[in-house]
Amino acid sequence: MIMMITKSQIGDMEKYYRTCLINSLPGYKSLHLVGTADPYGISNLCLFNSIFHIGANPPLLGMVCRPDTPNHDTLSNILATGCYTLNNVLPQWHQHAHQTSANYASGKSEFELCGFTEFYTEKLKAPFVEQSTIKIGMELRKTIDIDINNTTIVIGEITHIMLDESVVGNDGFIDHTKAGTITVAGLDSYYTTQPLGRISYAKAGNEAHLILTDN
Amino acid sequence: MIMMITKSQIGDMEKYYRTCLINSLPGYKSLHLVGTADPYGISNLCLFNSIFHIGANPPLLGMVCRPDTPNHDTLSNILATGCYTLNNVLPQWHQHAHQTSANYASGKSEFELCGFTEFYTEKLKAPFVEQSTIKIGMELRKTIDIDINNTTIVIGEITHIMLDESVVGNDGFIDHTKAGTITVAGLDSYYTTQPLGRISYAKAGNEAHLILTDN
Repeated sequence: MIMMITKSQIGDMEKYYRTCLINSLPGYKSLHLVGTADPYGISNLCLFNSIFHIGANPPLLGMVCRPDTPNHDTLSNILATGCYTLNNVLPQWHQHAHQTSANYASGKSEFELCGFTEFYTEKLKAPFVEQSTIKIGMELRKTIDIDINNTTIVIGEITHIMLDESVVGNDGFIDHTKAGTITVAGLDSYYTTQPLGRISYAKAGNEAHLILTDN
Repeated sequence: MIMMITKSQIGDMEKYYRTCLINSLPGYKSLHLVGTADPYGISNLCLFNSIFHIGANPPLLGMVCRPDTPNHDTLSNILATGCYTLNNVLPQWHQHAHQTSANYASGKSEFELCGFTEFYTEKLKAPFVEQSTIKIGMELRKTIDIDINNTTIVIGEITHIMLDESVVGNDGFIDHTKAGTITVAGLDSYYTTQPLGRISYAKAGNEAHLILTDN
């Protein structure tokens, strides 16, 4: 039976039900452990599912930070140091990654509390997650405050990429099934993936190869 | 062999290689057909992989529009009518969905060209994709111009949700494996998913249930 849910019904929903519905509605999302450090070198690690592509040249990624959640420390550290890291999540320790979203007392690092190892490179003050197979170093470019709901969009430029050469194809394409990357829907549901295949660049006039199928 | 790619190396890459690398780097992304209409009622349909969650109350989603791609018509239509739709993509017609990203001459609708059926509800001028199992109606709330690379972030509020009641759990969680939703990495690689499971809300002090495993 098809349901139609309208704006006023969404507004009237019980809070947790609405959070769960709206967070899971748009489907699968990028999943990253975001590594930061405060000006005294105390590290912080927090799980994010709001990373999005903004452009390839310069290489820019966005992410959404919320003031009322544990990722508040992440934003403070990014603003203080101007850098952060994004680290992919693997099936064998995704429960550890999930645990970084707990609201820990400040002064303790989620790296140690949740079983991750810090990894540093020269010239970047933020820690990478050693266990991740794809590590991305980021430099803060811009923050945008969204007044509608008091969130902040952080825009950063990719300054470092660390991965095994075997996961990078001849055309630059990164094979996340080989890297073991998982994805998430909603706030707590994790998934592995299976390739359906890659499709050639879409050009007008190429519709002929499309085979209509029943749904 | 672990590779380290730096900012200057990214800048020096051949353009298509860099586009492919940077677009695939952050992993799996939300995938939607975005339906719009111009003020004369001519429909437009274009594939997006940059939809991201901004908040649940009010229910807000963001997306990134680029001026130099076929999704330019999408942005013009959203600005003209104040509304758009997001429609999930299923495996059996994902090649048709990919084809909507071709650069068609204006005046022709990708609905007809790529084999999709328009579906309208009262009070929303933008067309849904009948074939999609999860349909989301959106009202424009705000646009933000990103001067670094001349893109635009569109922020909209969810005003309509249409789906089968069987895909919505008791707590509001939407089961995308049941709905048939697929995901994408990069610009052209599509995936189905397998659940690893849902994990309970992370609380400090719950680390004891974590089982350390080798990577």
